Amino acid sequence: MSVITIERKILAKNDAIAGQNRALFERQGIFVINLVSSPGAGKTSILERTLEHLRGRVKIGVIEGDVQTDLDAQRVARYDIPVVQIVTRGGCHLEANLVHDALQKIDLESIQLLVIENVGNLVCPANYDLGEACKVVIASTTEGDDKPLKYPEMFLKASVLIVNKMDLLAYVNCDINTLKQNALSINPRLKIFETSCTTASGINAWCDWLVCQLNKHG
Amino acid sequence: MSVITIERKILAKNDAIAGQNRALFERQGIFVINLVSSPGAGKTSILERTLEHLRGRVKIGVIEGDVQTDLDAQRVARYDIPVVQIVTRGGCHLEANLVHDALQKIDLESIQLLVIENVGNLVCPANYDLGEACKVVIASTTEGDDKPLKYPEMFLKASVLIVNKMDLLAYVNCDINTLKQNALSINPRLKIFETSCTTASGINAWCDWLVCQLNKHG
Repeated sequence: MSVITIERKILAKNDAIAGQNRALFERQGIFVINLVSSPGAGKTSILERTLEHLRGRVKIGVIEGDVQTDLDAQRVARYDIPVVQIVTRGGCHLEANLVHDALQKIDLESIQLLVIENVGNLVCPANYDLGEACKVVIASTTEGDDKPLKYPEMFLKASVLIVNKMDLLAYVNCDINTLKQNALSINPRLKIFETSCTTASGINAWCDWLVCQLNKHG
Repeated sequence: MSVITIERKILAKNDAIAGQNRALFERQGIFVINLVSSPGAGKTSILERTLEHLRGRVKIGVIEGDVQTDLDAQRVARYDIPVVQIVTRGGCHLEANLVHDALQKIDLESIQLLVIENVGNLVCPANYDLGEACKVVIASTTEGDDKPLKYPEMFLKASVLIVNKMDLLAYVNCDINTLKQNALSINPRLKIFETSCTTASGINAWCDWLVCQLNKHG
């Protein structure tokens, strides 16, 4: 059996479980996002800002995916919400069965929005459906404006692009218009937000969009 | 045949070809580094600064690995040195056989130092030996100080850590001592350099180290 055949079988099995997850989320009326980016682009910081902004308004649960450590789960747990940590122990992406198992530890009746923070990796998580309503890719200005062209699959699979670290734009070699044009050349349907977790700029607009999606799915 | 068995066979085959690459490099007296990092940490910028600094003193060849595009090879080719681009078309890391094939396109007699710039990914390239003398991992200050703990395998496999974007330290949530302590807790043997490609600080020390290695291996 060839490696490619094995890979196809893995993806087919993953997609089947992702479908079950998605059906469960739809039955429960939960809006689910899969947060993806390079390491250090700001997934956990965006999540923290989102939790602050929506506190008392939206019931949120979180699944944290990391190669090692529960540092991110510790950061998020301070907001007094349900958090489950998945440690992949070297694995470079989350898979649908890991999310399926994590769901057993969350009271789904108690949440409206589930945020799955994937492993920091701009390549591999693109191919693994977890059952989410949409992938949200974060690209920070410090990574430069060419990343959508160099890692196109993730920008193609995402519905939303958050350009983070806007406060550092003046100090780095990144043209924001080029970055957005490059992203839209890969995926013209991308909804784009510009944020800074340091100044909190753009967090309002991002959270408004989230609330709007909740109203559609709830 | 299980997936794990297949994975072991892939790695064993990769290691065998990496061994052949390494033997070739040693016969030719070429020092080879495998440059790894997250997307946008500054692999190509460090390489450009290195090429400027060592111009006329060291004969350098480059193999560029990217998921898509030859943007990095175009940047490096301006320095009038031999460059071969490998496009992995979705693949999340370079493998020894890709490097083996790329070597056919470089006149090895004409170079002393070969820099292999891997795909931007802090997870998967850790497991694939390419035949290099050492892995050099770049972590930028903008990624935060917790990355060695969260992605330990790469820091364990590397011999050198370049902490890049030191000029942005004042603007980001990153304690440089914590970052270095975290890296050394994973791998106490790491040689650490602190650089900025904007101000060129630290490039001298990094290039001095490279020249010293060339003298040992030449």
